[in-house]
Amino acid sequence: MRVINFNAGPAGLPLPALERARDELLDFQGSGMSIMEHSHRGKEYEAVHNEAISLLTELLGIPATHQVLFLQGGASQQFAQVPMNFLTAGASADYLMTGVWSEKALDEAKYYGKPRIAGTALNASKGYTRVLKQAELQLDPAAAYVHMTSNNTIYGTQWHTFPEAGRVPLVADMSSDLLWRPIDVSRFSMIYAGAQKNVGPSGIVLVIVAKDFMAKGRTDIPKIFRYSTYAENNSLYNTPPTFAIYLCRNVLAWIKGVGGLKQIEQWNREKGELLYGAIDRNAAFYRAPVEKESRSYMNVVFRLPTEALEETFVSEAKKAGMVGLKGHRTAGGIRVSLYNAVTVENVKALVAFMDQFFKKHG
Amino acid sequence: MRVINFNAGPAGLPLPALERARDELLDFQGSGMSIMEHSHRGKEYEAVHNEAISLLTELLGIPATHQVLFLQGGASQQFAQVPMNFLTAGASADYLMTGVWSEKALDEAKYYGKPRIAGTALNASKGYTRVLKQAELQLDPAAAYVHMTSNNTIYGTQWHTFPEAGRVPLVADMSSDLLWRPIDVSRFSMIYAGAQKNVGPSGIVLVIVAKDFMAKGRTDIPKIFRYSTYAENNSLYNTPPTFAIYLCRNVLAWIKGVGGLKQIEQWNREKGELLYGAIDRNAAFYRAPVEKESRSYMNVVFRLPTEALEETFVSEAKKAGMVGLKGHRTAGGIRVSLYNAVTVENVKALVAFMDQFFKKHG
Repeated sequence: MRVINFNAGPAGLPLPALERARDELLDFQGSGMSIMEHSHRGKEYEAVHNEAISLLTELLGIPATHQVLFLQGGASQQFAQVPMNFLTAGASADYLMTGVWSEKALDEAKYYGKPRIAGTALNASKGYTRVLKQAELQLDPAAAYVHMTSNNTIYGTQWHTFPEAGRVPLVADMSSDLLWRPIDVSRFSMIYAGAQKNVGPSGIVLVIVAKDFMAKGRTDIPKIFRYSTYAENNSLYNTPPTFAIYLCRNVLAWIKGVGGLKQIEQWNREKGELLYGAIDRNAAFYRAPVEKESRSYMNVVFRLPTEALEETFVSEAKKAGMVGLKGHRTAGGIRVSLYNAVTVENVKALVAFMDQFFKKHG
Repeated sequence: MRVINFNAGPAGLPLPALERARDELLDFQGSGMSIMEHSHRGKEYEAVHNEAISLLTELLGIPATHQVLFLQGGASQQFAQVPMNFLTAGASADYLMTGVWSEKALDEAKYYGKPRIAGTALNASKGYTRVLKQAELQLDPAAAYVHMTSNNTIYGTQWHTFPEAGRVPLVADMSSDLLWRPIDVSRFSMIYAGAQKNVGPSGIVLVIVAKDFMAKGRTDIPKIFRYSTYAENNSLYNTPPTFAIYLCRNVLAWIKGVGGLKQIEQWNREKGELLYGAIDRNAAFYRAPVEKESRSYMNVVFRLPTEALEETFVSEAKKAGMVGLKGHRTAGGIRVSLYNAVTVENVKALVAFMDQFFKKHG
């Protein structure tokens, strides 16, 4: 029996996408082999590859000015690959600091140029409990790009209004909230996202890059690290992670099938409101550290009065068939990840559990 | 119905490894979720991760001087990552040229130092039809490392005796023949292999690295590119491609179950001898370009008298349930890949087909 999975990533996947994979795991469309046993240069795999690209393009309304690429190495490799491509020694880039992942991105950029903190939400006593306001940003018009993290899985914060970067290219790590709702892709010169939250399994990174930005990339770096190499070869320069891309295709097809990103957003807003409602009606017991305007609809974090109660919460929830609720090791407490595969009914079950838990322990 | 799959990679996988994945795709060991939906920091996934490492260690007899790492980006990324870690500007490394993949490795190294050709098997008229002899190598004792490609998928050549590099660290791309037989790992300072031939699906690279060599790696490069980062974190610094590693585990467990690498080698030698036998007994018709001493047991290449006959061969084989026989686009002709998932019976079926085909068209 399947459990209710609130994992932070790798996360639960929509059951229809998984069932499709299971049903054809030994024989893909009558070809006599698994999709993962097909050549990446064969027509069977290439159809899947191109369908994944076209579904993502359709769902997000990606304009013709941008191109979809598939890379490997996780968002963590992108932290290094973005500055490797777009910074030269001495050149600067602006980093907007909203959590651990922004910090890691900044650290890797230091090996290639002079990244600069153009705004930080870090509070010495509270840590990261919000994102940044436009008025707080000190942007450098000469920066090579502005880097941001759209959703912060550990601290449960999320940008609901994207910053204005003027003429400077805006680069966003959207690993933990890409596809949670429709967005205006044209505002970004680059979006990258490890797939293992809303899109697929780990081991594949989706990149959506503006062609004019990509054209400015360095050519004195190895071919395998240039975005242009992937673009020129439809992400088939070398062997891509074919099965991971196939699973993304299955998830993207599921999103389209249920009504696209408008429907997904409606569900995600309903899920978030249900859960934040349960927190707020017993706010002295379920203590949410994040400022309301910055609350994430993907990762909801809260504390209980004691760590012992937090442990009880996690273990009693597990007995009720709900897993993945333990907070990140650097933040503690409870974290509920509400990625696209989590249903409204799943959240209603959790909310009922929380109300009961409060009655018993509050 | 499953076909007989002679694909060059991604390649066929052992049926029991795939069946195991299918049977538990929705519910891994009663946990209520797929292994790909598990956290990479949870005990369920970590057990799989560590089992994959210990199986590989056991099967290859990897000594305690070496460590197993899991990376992403394919062997193509290793072409750049090896010199990024071990070359400084002006430093040199020796490259042994035996095919297109050696050339690509050399090209990427040029961005970091001064790689040097220490021997080439390239013949102006014949291309690559053999590997190198020790006497042909002009090794530089001051080189940072010697780089070789153990098996050349496109040209069907393979090193049967590894070169002596003296005190210089020997680095081998074994993407297309790791696990075809037992080897003495201690002779290599680094072995890397994209998994999609003998070990698993695409999207995962196995690295076996000597700890003393790794310790010489540069620390002025981004953390995500340092081998030491993977080593210090048991390849869990960032989210690894969990499902790809799980599938490798299934394949490694299958290898152990059938008797380990001695049994695998016995089958591979039998397969190769059957197929080369079929070629040699009609050598004017099935023309094998590779010198006998350099013949690969993983990829067997041959030409037929005309390209039209080659097309007929591929299409008639397909009707007989055998696929993946078309040669690489740069080499043409026929290529038969005999990776571990291909059985002796599969090769006997092909040989019977070839003998019939010769009778009809020879």
